[in-house]
Amino acid sequence: MTEAQASASGDGSAPDVETILERATFNADGLLPAVIQQHDTLEVLMLGWMDAEALRRTLTTGRVTYWSRSRQEYWRKGDTSGHAQYVHQAALDCDGDTLLVQVEQIGAACHTGDRTCFLADVLNPVVGAPAE
Amino acid sequence: MTEAQASASGDGSAPDVETILERATFNADGLLPAVIQQHDTLEVLMLGWMDAEALRRTLTTGRVTYWSRSRQEYWRKGDTSGHAQYVHQAALDCDGDTLLVQVEQIGAACHTGDRTCFLADVLNPVVGAPAE
Repeated sequence: MTEAQASASGDGSAPDVETILERATFNADGLLPAVIQQHDTLEVLMLGWMDAEALRRTLTTGRVTYWSRSRQEYWRKGDTSGHAQYVHQAALDCDGDTLLVQVEQIGAACHTGDRTCFLADVLNPVVGAPAE
Repeated sequence: MTEAQASASGDGSAPDVETILERATFNADGLLPAVIQQHDTLEVLMLGWMDAEALRRTLTTGRVTYWSRSRQEYWRKGDTSGHAQYVHQAALDCDGDTLLVQVEQIGAACHTGDRTCFLADVLNPVVGAPAE
């Protein structure tokens, strides 16, 4: 491989992608949200959208791939920017309609140049705490 | 307040919620995804959906409130389960269509009893790494 080195999954075997795709629940547009988290610092970097084919590519190639809703095309993160996301681990949530991907993020995750997409608009909400 | 103690936001003033609601971008169903993260361990706990009113309640009351798509009603996390989410910080992403909320999670975030919704279906994808 020229752009990445991919290795077998955590348990030493290839994931059973067809079975995973059957468990995954996509919305009316055929998409599910993917939360992207840096694997070691645990920063939430961004949220992107995947259809079944983007999910298949993400699980089998070692690189995170999205479906771009604005451009209506597959978008392998980093191909333009160099800011690739290498897959470390992934999980579906309890009802199969959200994906969490832990990655090694090269450079900035955000197109603005920020490390994460959540640095630009911090809201300072009212803080809550359990009653005494 | 009987169920929570709320205090002023991080900068000492109430957030300008009307301005935030104008910046937030909701989908065709009037919703945006909210990624929920434990504020200290940085675990990603779950993803829920908010409409403008749920976002307003989340930012102003100190407790995370969702719109339940299945039940078509507001759902303040913990009112039934006791597993409340107390708001610590929140941010919109770079294009305003995703929310990240850092919380103090009481007990399990997942309705299954798991601490997070992402423990039940770990996928062991092919692992990627930059080429040498």
